[in-house]
Amino acid sequence: MNKPNTARRKSQPAKASTGKGAPEARSTRDLLLDATGALMSEGNTTTVSFADISERSGINSALIRYHFGNKQGLLEALIERDAGASYDGLDRLVEMDIPPEEKMRKHIQGIMRLYHRYPYLNRLLIELQSQSETEIAHHISERYTRRAVNAQVAILDEGYKAGVFRKVDPMLFHFSLVGACDGIFHSRSALDHVFGVKEIDETLRDRFAEQVAEIVMSGLRPVTG
Amino acid sequence: MNKPNTARRKSQPAKASTGKGAPEARSTRDLLLDATGALMSEGNTTTVSFADISERSGINSALIRYHFGNKQGLLEALIERDAGASYDGLDRLVEMDIPPEEKMRKHIQGIMRLYHRYPYLNRLLIELQSQSETEIAHHISERYTRRAVNAQVAILDEGYKAGVFRKVDPMLFHFSLVGACDGIFHSRSALDHVFGVKEIDETLRDRFAEQVAEIVMSGLRPVTG
Repeated sequence: MNKPNTARRKSQPAKASTGKGAPEARSTRDLLLDATGALMSEGNTTTVSFADISERSGINSALIRYHFGNKQGLLEALIERDAGASYDGLDRLVEMDIPPEEKMRKHIQGIMRLYHRYPYLNRLLIELQSQSETEIAHHISERYTRRAVNAQVAILDEGYKAGVFRKVDPMLFHFSLVGACDGIFHSRSALDHVFGVKEIDETLRDRFAEQVAEIVMSGLRPVTG
Repeated sequence: MNKPNTARRKSQPAKASTGKGAPEARSTRDLLLDATGALMSEGNTTTVSFADISERSGINSALIRYHFGNKQGLLEALIERDAGASYDGLDRLVEMDIPPEEKMRKHIQGIMRLYHRYPYLNRLLIELQSQSETEIAHHISERYTRRAVNAQVAILDEGYKAGVFRKVDPMLFHFSLVGACDGIFHSRSALDHVFGVKEIDETLRDRFAEQVAEIVMSGLRPVTG
């Protein structure tokens, strides 16, 4: 496999040898995450077994436990690899000196790019939060969901104060927006069965983002008359 | 709708032998569907085992195979029980003599009521369609997804011709609307973690329906100026 981690491996200086941080260890870790993500994307599922990951990566499944502890640890690491940087980007977007409408539009486009690249992501976030007694569930909801909600609250609030958005409930807004953006990726099978569309390419992704953004932006406009 | 099987159970002294058409066989079937739906709702999941269904219903799991053949057959029957009548209602809605905006609003409220009652429904529909080589996948997509799409196409078209909706892509509209409506039900765990909301009651359901409808209806309005 010739995936992004190859480049990263080359350009990253070797971490000091704390055992787990050694370069070859890092590389095994990345390969395991690559295999997990690829299996999820291809099967449009969040359910993959250690055996499948082992077969796909060619790495003994004992090393999954060595690197990630358990399945939850692996999935948490996958989310961080896939989405960590995007959430940092979202924080920066909120602070940018552009109108709130543009922030919201960029935010919607950003979600679509993320789901297009990692179609399992939203379902994985939800699944890990469903295991509600675990520390991971708490961590996931604070690190990802609450951050997204906070960013949306900030943008909605800015737009309301500027008179360009009407008042909406940000909690309800959050869940409907995330669901709307995930819809076509989650329902990939129906997209094929009903419309004969086998692949969501970048053109389709952008059309989807554009239409959702259009509806949401018009829907947020203050009611006149 | 009242709960048909409860009434039936009372009026039908149970058990024993015979053929599929016999009333007691029908009652067992309903009890198995009840147990399956209840487990899915409570766990907010679509994954339930025959063992769990058997334990919950108090019915030997061999009878699941007897009545439904296999897991897919059981899930297909569950969808039909849960949603069959709603899709018939949707066909009637399209034909009603009311303005297209009102049809769309009623349609959105109808989806919300359905997902509120059967929060696993959308995910179950998608899952069965994902098993793309099976006849059931084809049946599910024709009987449910395509019918919903057709109804939406008809309403959107009527609204466009009446000059009250702008032109949108009905395929993209379908997936974003379904996703938007399912968002809060699918993400029930995040609703709890991030907002401390443990239950989606009818008030919350109606507020969610209202806000999604507001945004969608404004979003569909023709662009002026």
